[in-house]
Amino acid sequence: MNFLERQEKLRGQLATTRCNALLTSHLPNIRYLCGFTGSAGVLLIDARGSVFFTDVRYDTQSRTEVKEAKVVIARKGLLNSIGEWLAARRKRSQKWTIGIESEHVTVAEKKRLAKLLPAGLGLRDASTVVERARMVKDDDELGLIRAAVRLGATLFDRALEVLKPGVKEGEVAAVMEYAARTSGAEEMSFPTIIASGARSALPHGRATQQVIAPGGFVVCDFGVILAGYCSDQTRTVWMGSASAEAREAYEAVREAQAAAIATVRPGISVGEVDAAARKVLHKSGLGRYFTHSTGHGVGLEIHEAPKVAAGQKEVLKPGMVITIEPGVYFPGKWGVRIEDMVAVNESGCEVLTPTGKDFLAV
Amino acid sequence: MNFLERQEKLRGQLATTRCNALLTSHLPNIRYLCGFTGSAGVLLIDARGSVFFTDVRYDTQSRTEVKEAKVVIARKGLLNSIGEWLAARRKRSQKWTIGIESEHVTVAEKKRLAKLLPAGLGLRDASTVVERARMVKDDDELGLIRAAVRLGATLFDRALEVLKPGVKEGEVAAVMEYAARTSGAEEMSFPTIIASGARSALPHGRATQQVIAPGGFVVCDFGVILAGYCSDQTRTVWMGSASAEAREAYEAVREAQAAAIATVRPGISVGEVDAAARKVLHKSGLGRYFTHSTGHGVGLEIHEAPKVAAGQKEVLKPGMVITIEPGVYFPGKWGVRIEDMVAVNESGCEVLTPTGKDFLAV
Repeated sequence: MNFLERQEKLRGQLATTRCNALLTSHLPNIRYLCGFTGSAGVLLIDARGSVFFTDVRYDTQSRTEVKEAKVVIARKGLLNSIGEWLAARRKRSQKWTIGIESEHVTVAEKKRLAKLLPAGLGLRDASTVVERARMVKDDDELGLIRAAVRLGATLFDRALEVLKPGVKEGEVAAVMEYAARTSGAEEMSFPTIIASGARSALPHGRATQQVIAPGGFVVCDFGVILAGYCSDQTRTVWMGSASAEAREAYEAVREAQAAAIATVRPGISVGEVDAAARKVLHKSGLGRYFTHSTGHGVGLEIHEAPKVAAGQKEVLKPGMVITIEPGVYFPGKWGVRIEDMVAVNESGCEVLTPTGKDFLAV
Repeated sequence: MNFLERQEKLRGQLATTRCNALLTSHLPNIRYLCGFTGSAGVLLIDARGSVFFTDVRYDTQSRTEVKEAKVVIARKGLLNSIGEWLAARRKRSQKWTIGIESEHVTVAEKKRLAKLLPAGLGLRDASTVVERARMVKDDDELGLIRAAVRLGATLFDRALEVLKPGVKEGEVAAVMEYAARTSGAEEMSFPTIIASGARSALPHGRATQQVIAPGGFVVCDFGVILAGYCSDQTRTVWMGSASAEAREAYEAVREAQAAAIATVRPGISVGEVDAAARKVLHKSGLGRYFTHSTGHGVGLEIHEAPKVAAGQKEVLKPGMVITIEPGVYFPGKWGVRIEDMVAVNESGCEVLTPTGKDFLAV
């Protein structure tokens, strides 16, 4: 990973945010900028260099992991350490404005930080500067994302070995999560969704101890984290012998997903991608059952910018990685969702998820 | 769960926080107060009643789960919905002060909320009001916590069936997590720590693909979430034939843990509990290798109030549930930690974790 290049790019943006330094506290942003994978730390980047503050639990780990930043072990609390460090450099940092990530810093944290700052220093919102940089993945990241998606996809093959009426949702999730772990995944990228029967109409139906019944869809939405990067995939399988209505709903979702994928290319807005999926479902008379947005960015976080939703103006660029996941949900009855990850390239997009999408009944 | 009683208790505290209403946005607090288990929602509690705002993904789920609150599905964003709801009741809520959870609300969220509020309404910090109530568990909660701890403890038995030199850390975690899932756990309460060799000296050494080598400790720190409540337990096992030094360090940690548990009773401060563990390790000459605090509260969150740390003044009360987890860490060499969960009762405490603590070598 070229951490120096990422930090240098950010340094080049300090002027446009009207800040002398950026205080990054959002952990995925910290990992992106200096490689730290732990759960507590703050990275201060200014024109001259970078300092990473963490606590004593991460003494050994931070010294191994953190690149392109001086490591300071905060023995009296992270905020105190930052305050002291800035005070010791008071001359240089006089009248500094420090950018903070207002989308992640709590009201209480900001108040505590403001109290600890030497006189003359101000805080200013510099939200989403790092997130915007992270939207476009570099080649190192695309390689890691491809590997995560490939590993994630193998879990669905494992699921199909056990998925059938009579099995518990949680048993299917257990088999998938065991395969993830033994294949080297760090953890699941979100709580595994195995939603059967009427629960398939809940867009976020986590696997429970419910026994899967015949005559309904099972929505399987799952992902892994591999070397920090997330995968995200959904497939929906019918249990038993399917009605024409179920097949039609499935095919409509599949067509909507294909239409959205076909629009993905540089210069197109994410709102247009969302509209492409929505248009197909409206034509099929299912528009009002597509109750969520079409997708989201994926990378170090399972949900990151951009939102692929109605009216969103963000324009696609090569290197962006998003999900395309339309679905239809009939409350109390069943639901269908199909989701792939795609990477925008120069000519359109690369569909990263290798799993087939033919209607499947077991 | 007696959600009404919990909400009524909070209503009784509105006056002391000088607020007319409390806007709870921290999800564990929301679950505690009204039963909602999803990932997006805000609960507004005032003297007359409660309103829960969530988005369309949780339409069906919120109507089933949410107790003692009116459910509003926010079609134009949660904050917009809250703003509209308050504006529609402008007369009644004129000059209201609304308490927000400053420890959880971000700077950006507060700014957006303030913009949407009708004139005359103010925001005020009402942090930790719900967290303070949650520190003392009611009987329903104690029952659920006992069940979670019992289930969690069975995972260590599964681990011992595979834990030995030559096995990967991740394989041990996989076996434990599979057992958790098939036993009905919703998910792990935190990323499973299986830290072998020099990694056992990292207090937060998540399971990796590293093959466990003979001649070192393996720290196993793990927990489940069952019906919303977390378990947390650590056991440390030596690989192969142990040196006298390893045994001595283990016994010192065990003695420190026992000493801390022996101090737990109503009226004692958490700082005194921490001091009891620290005193034993100082006597053994290991004090400076005990680099973290002695424990923390556990409940709907894996880390919640109180912090069982040096100098902390919080006084124990019956119903509080905390971990007792001293450890010693020799960087580059190995580490030992032993952790149980205990529930404060009238006469002392109930050690919830049933697993033995004798020195174990495999």
